[in-house]
Amino acid sequence: MAIQKKVGILGATGTVGQRFILLLANHPTFVIHALGASSRSAGKAYKDAVRWKQSQPIPAAVATKVVKSCVAEEFKDCDVVFSGLDADVAGDIEMEFLNADLVVFSNAKNYRREPTVPLIVPTVNTSHFDLIPYQRELHKLSKGFLVTNANCSTTGLVVPLKALQDAFGPLSHIMVHTQQAISGAGYPGVPSLDILDNVVPYIGGEEEKMEWEVGKILGNIAEDGKKFAPLTNTIVSATCTRVPVLDGHLESVSIKFANAAPTVEQVYEVLEKYTCEAQTLGCHLAPEKAIVVTKDADRPQPRLDRDVQKGQAVTVGRVRTCPVLDIKFTLLVHNTVLGAAGSSVLNAEVAVAKGLL
Amino acid sequence: MAIQKKVGILGATGTVGQRFILLLANHPTFVIHALGASSRSAGKAYKDAVRWKQSQPIPAAVATKVVKSCVAEEFKDCDVVFSGLDADVAGDIEMEFLNADLVVFSNAKNYRREPTVPLIVPTVNTSHFDLIPYQRELHKLSKGFLVTNANCSTTGLVVPLKALQDAFGPLSHIMVHTQQAISGAGYPGVPSLDILDNVVPYIGGEEEKMEWEVGKILGNIAEDGKKFAPLTNTIVSATCTRVPVLDGHLESVSIKFANAAPTVEQVYEVLEKYTCEAQTLGCHLAPEKAIVVTKDADRPQPRLDRDVQKGQAVTVGRVRTCPVLDIKFTLLVHNTVLGAAGSSVLNAEVAVAKGLL
Amino acid sequence: MAIQKKVGILGATGTVGQRFILLLANHPTFVIHALGASSRSAGKAYKDAVRWKQSQPIPAAVATKVVKSCVAEEFKDCDVVFSGLDADVAGDIEMEFLNADLVVFSNAKNYRREPTVPLIVPTVNTSHFDLIPYQRELHKLSKGFLVTNANCSTTGLVVPLKALQDAFGPLSHIMVHTQQAISGAGYPGVPSLDILDNVVPYIGGEEEKMEWEVGKILGNIAEDGKKFAPLTNTIVSATCTRVPVLDGHLESVSIKFANAAPTVEQVYEVLEKYTCEAQTLGCHLAPEKAIVVTKDADRPQPRLDRDVQKGQAVTVGRVRTCPVLDIKFTLLVHNTVLGAAGSSVLNAEVAVAKGLL
Amino acid sequence: MAIQKKVGILGATGTVGQRFILLLANHPTFVIHALGASSRSAGKAYKDAVRWKQSQPIPAAVATKVVKSCVAEEFKDCDVVFSGLDADVAGDIEMEFLNADLVVFSNAKNYRREPTVPLIVPTVNTSHFDLIPYQRELHKLSKGFLVTNANCSTTGLVVPLKALQDAFGPLSHIMVHTQQAISGAGYPGVPSLDILDNVVPYIGGEEEKMEWEVGKILGNIAEDGKKFAPLTNTIVSATCTRVPVLDGHLESVSIKFANAAPTVEQVYEVLEKYTCEAQTLGCHLAPEKAIVVTKDADRPQPRLDRDVQKGQAVTVGRVRTCPVLDIKFTLLVHNTVLGAAGSSVLNAEVAVAKGLL
Repeated sequence: MAIQKKVGILGATGTVGQRFILLLANHPTFVIHALGASSRSAGKAYKDAVRWKQSQPIPAAVATKVVKSCVAEEFKDCDVVFSGLDADVAGDIEMEFLNADLVVFSNAKNYRREPTVPLIVPTVNTSHFDLIPYQRELHKLSKGFLVTNANCSTTGLVVPLKALQDAFGPLSHIMVHTQQAISGAGYPGVPSLDILDNVVPYIGGEEEKMEWEVGKILGNIAEDGKKFAPLTNTIVSATCTRVPVLDGHLESVSIKFANAAPTVEQVYEVLEKYTCEAQTLGCHLAPEKAIVVTKDADRPQPRLDRDVQKGQAVTVGRVRTCPVLDIKFTLLVHNTVLGAAGSSVLNAEVAVAKGLL
Repeated sequence: MAIQKKVGILGATGTVGQRFILLLANHPTFVIHALGASSRSAGKAYKDAVRWKQSQPIPAAVATKVVKSCVAEEFKDCDVVFSGLDADVAGDIEMEFLNADLVVFSNAKNYRREPTVPLIVPTVNTSHFDLIPYQRELHKLSKGFLVTNANCSTTGLVVPLKALQDAFGPLSHIMVHTQQAISGAGYPGVPSLDILDNVVPYIGGEEEKMEWEVGKILGNIAEDGKKFAPLTNTIVSATCTRVPVLDGHLESVSIKFANAAPTVEQVYEVLEKYTCEAQTLGCHLAPEKAIVVTKDADRPQPRLDRDVQKGQAVTVGRVRTCPVLDIKFTLLVHNTVLGAAGSSVLNAEVAVAKGLL
Repeated sequence: MAIQKKVGILGATGTVGQRFILLLANHPTFVIHALGASSRSAGKAYKDAVRWKQSQPIPAAVATKVVKSCVAEEFKDCDVVFSGLDADVAGDIEMEFLNADLVVFSNAKNYRREPTVPLIVPTVNTSHFDLIPYQRELHKLSKGFLVTNANCSTTGLVVPLKALQDAFGPLSHIMVHTQQAISGAGYPGVPSLDILDNVVPYIGGEEEKMEWEVGKILGNIAEDGKKFAPLTNTIVSATCTRVPVLDGHLESVSIKFANAAPTVEQVYEVLEKYTCEAQTLGCHLAPEKAIVVTKDADRPQPRLDRDVQKGQAVTVGRVRTCPVLDIKFTLLVHNTVLGAAGSSVLNAEVAVAKGLL
Repeated sequence: MAIQKKVGILGATGTVGQRFILLLANHPTFVIHALGASSRSAGKAYKDAVRWKQSQPIPAAVATKVVKSCVAEEFKDCDVVFSGLDADVAGDIEMEFLNADLVVFSNAKNYRREPTVPLIVPTVNTSHFDLIPYQRELHKLSKGFLVTNANCSTTGLVVPLKALQDAFGPLSHIMVHTQQAISGAGYPGVPSLDILDNVVPYIGGEEEKMEWEVGKILGNIAEDGKKFAPLTNTIVSATCTRVPVLDGHLESVSIKFANAAPTVEQVYEVLEKYTCEAQTLGCHLAPEKAIVVTKDADRPQPRLDRDVQKGQAVTVGRVRTCPVLDIKFTLLVHNTVLGAAGSSVLNAEVAVAKGLL
């Protein structure tokens, strides 16, 4: 019989929380056990507390569940807690949960830069789970730990970069331009008057996140085994824009290798062959291919490619020589699946497979 | 009394042709005299031949004008001919008109790379008109000549680049990422199924045009005075995408200077002070400011900024340091005004002011 | 020399307030004198208090004006006050202004159903100004009075209905289906996640407003001259939806006449000939034609027709026989011009022409 | 072991054809056997002939199949042929196929009004299959026959009307206003310049189809059993518009009953209880509920409700009293599933269950 793990969801009424619910309904390992939201929602049935904005209906078992406050005491019998909390409250709540010896997978940005907290993209750097024993020791925990996943745009970017770095050595320079979907801003999020017949060339804090997170994810654990050591010789320049697309972030990337540059054909070959640990471990949500390569001249496109591999793959196309750096290409990531809740859940599956929970 | 010049418009029923008509109705110098279109339209009243897609009505004087075939004989009494022809027919027709000693301002791409044909953005390189006497000599013309304007995306890009090159010396590297409006593809152009809730990361031939045209526009006339000498030490890498925006191309630009890089403040100052010959000559369509600088964090935006200065200016914002190259910024150009018909008409105004027609 | 009237604008930072500012900048009669907004904005320069969302820049004379609180004392030297206040605050504030003997033209819904307050669409029922003397008497005012304009969708509907009622007698049944632009909901208004690739078939309170307001506007002053007498034998059924359009409400209308129905040709003729008092009085913002008739099969369309006559006309097309009622047709009204601020300003111009202020 | 039927698809490269392929891949009864398209495509592998515009990839078994010409000889071993042909060619080709004794389910409009051809919406009037024996006799066929499905907008409309007619007797008047998705126009279909930030209030021929088809579908077979007898006392008035929505037609409906009108509660109850023969027969694509009722004030919405019941149900909401007729409500139908290919396939499933093929 399959292992069953009890799951709690923090921020369950938000857009990320709704995605957690859809991903976890009918999950072979995880069973939704507790839902947490703001005090305004606590005590209500989920269906009355939420403004459900998904095209699939609320799973029946979740609809009538009573929403709890986000306090650790209410979630103490959960084997794992997923956090879709907003950054303004995630810091305190997640730390309280960690201190209560709970396992927390967070989508919030608050602890991503913490030297002892893994920042894991599940198809890229699950080796970073190796720091968990030290994190537990540091916080004097027996079973709890905290893992974060990356910003949605960073997540899409690092998947092909990891494949290329593994094959051709370090990248010295990365330029990335994003065209991000409105769902990335939550609900109500982007006012329609701002985005219909328009593009907004700015997303607060996003460029800084991308420029920093890449280095930690593609980097290693320090030699002393007690902290992460982000890359120091890889420079990232990001420009982030918002476009009138519902789901799916498109990114135009140009890179320079520290060593000799590969050819376009070599890049395609490496991308096509890429596999990751989540696949090897046979995780439920692991995509069959972590990178889907397209050679159609006008692909990937958000509407046509975002649901490939149930949103857990990154689609890469338009690989070509860059006259300024070495190689340029276009990628697409489903921002609310692999780019958010899908990363957290797949990370947790990997943790189960590794015996961490 | 003002000079009056008789004007012909080729491709008058197309989207660029419609823009020519709106720009030339009520023009102080140019009077619409003849309209040319395909044989399917020739012989019909303009209002019956056109699928008018502008939010302003067809000017009354134009509506009932009978459309002619695009043969030079029909346009021989025009002082100037504007061509909004498609590339597949523009080559032969424009050459026939030139050989008939007519003055042609073309929006088509066919002769842009011709060593003796000026490729002029009216707020950038009107000095290139200096080659006209030699072009006439070469083609044995007494009054005719041919001038092209640039690709819409190139046009937006070169305006701030010219200002920066003048102030800080040559640029060694330019990376540009465009988000282009659907009107750039004409009518019927982009199918709605391709662009609603979507971005298309490819526009056929566009990247090559941008990467080549910048060098000719920002370059000089060769020493022998008999051809243009494009820049050889400026490398351009372009990525072009189509977004669900009606009008206005947004471009994210990153540049490296051959010499020491200026500060962000110096860049802002130079952009704000930039003036061009079309302004000095007092041309009717010359914008009050060729570059409009915005310091709002989330501007320029297509819907809010495309009509600034009646679409003849380029709006620049988000100037900041680029971790990979030197400086990055965002610009917006109205693709069917300065990026197309507006360039041709302003170029012609400059030619009148310079006594060339 | 022209008369100059000092103007105050309440709710000046909102979307309707911004439209008031654009309509009143450079107005031949009205001069913007005072701007009122919430206490959060009061004391700030207008440009710092507003989130300006118009494609034209803030008029220079307005940008630096200091915003006041919406209290009558601050506006006592205004000859006329335009209110773009939200309904939740408009009731108390507008009544305070009226009691202070000020002239108020309100876009809010609060007093539309008041039996002694005119509900005026400026191209329809300016005869309703006749009740002002009695309103002043009732409220013991020497110069102040209160006039409201109608809901944006009602406004578009009553213009052709008035023409038809005048020509063919009372309408017994009216069915109307609206497709309303997002700007009608203000800013931030409609979340983009709700309207991109979508239609929302419900707008709170809108159907009730349309079904009620038509009767008052197309009705008369009661025989005693002391109140309005809405029509009692005209039944309206409204269905209101929100569509992803920036500006311009499209309405599909079907009507039945109490008497014999006219032919389609007779309807077209009457619509084309319609004129109104605002035109006769020579008001500045009065459209040249209050109804613009189109016979193109696929018109009117929001994007192509909303700016006709500077947004002060209603465009009507697709007149045809209705198999269920008598006649059906399609109309378009610019919801933030004639449908909101443009009605208020034109109403005020009529009031000036009639000597009421 | 399950019955296996060999299937041919005409117009296989078009948008309806693509939907047929997705619905028939992995179907328990139908196996895709032959693909037909224009002579331009014939002889090519399907993946090279099609411009695939679906978010799911081309099924592998179909991708490499060679496309045939649409001649009966090429399809003679097919048990059933689905036609997604355009109306301009469907007439001749479908008749040739019928005369070759083939079974044809057509999505084209050409034979919908034919007195001996059933016009079947699979969740409404599968009793109309009863005329097939007579149709075969008339055309001297042993196994072939021709069945059409309805226009996409008609299809959505008749489902709730059937439920209400069954429960409360004939409808005397029906007014319907549609807001139709762009996918209804095929590919390239609606130019993006026509529909972005816009609504088009006209779809050629659509209103006439709706006004006529309802009567045949909700009517009976004539007493002599040799033709269909459309309703004569039900009057329909339709207004059809195009909106910037990808999939899903929204319809606002108002109806009058010949007899006493039911209450809103009675209408809801009847809609909720409605079942149809396709369900009773246990057909694979039959929705669990043919009508999904929503009581949320702002539903149904295209983006949120179109995929309910895999696109084979009609969602109905906003049932309320109509001041002019009796009852009004809003419905949503997925135009390319139940409104097109989904009807044809479910119709064929019913025919299999009834032993007709």
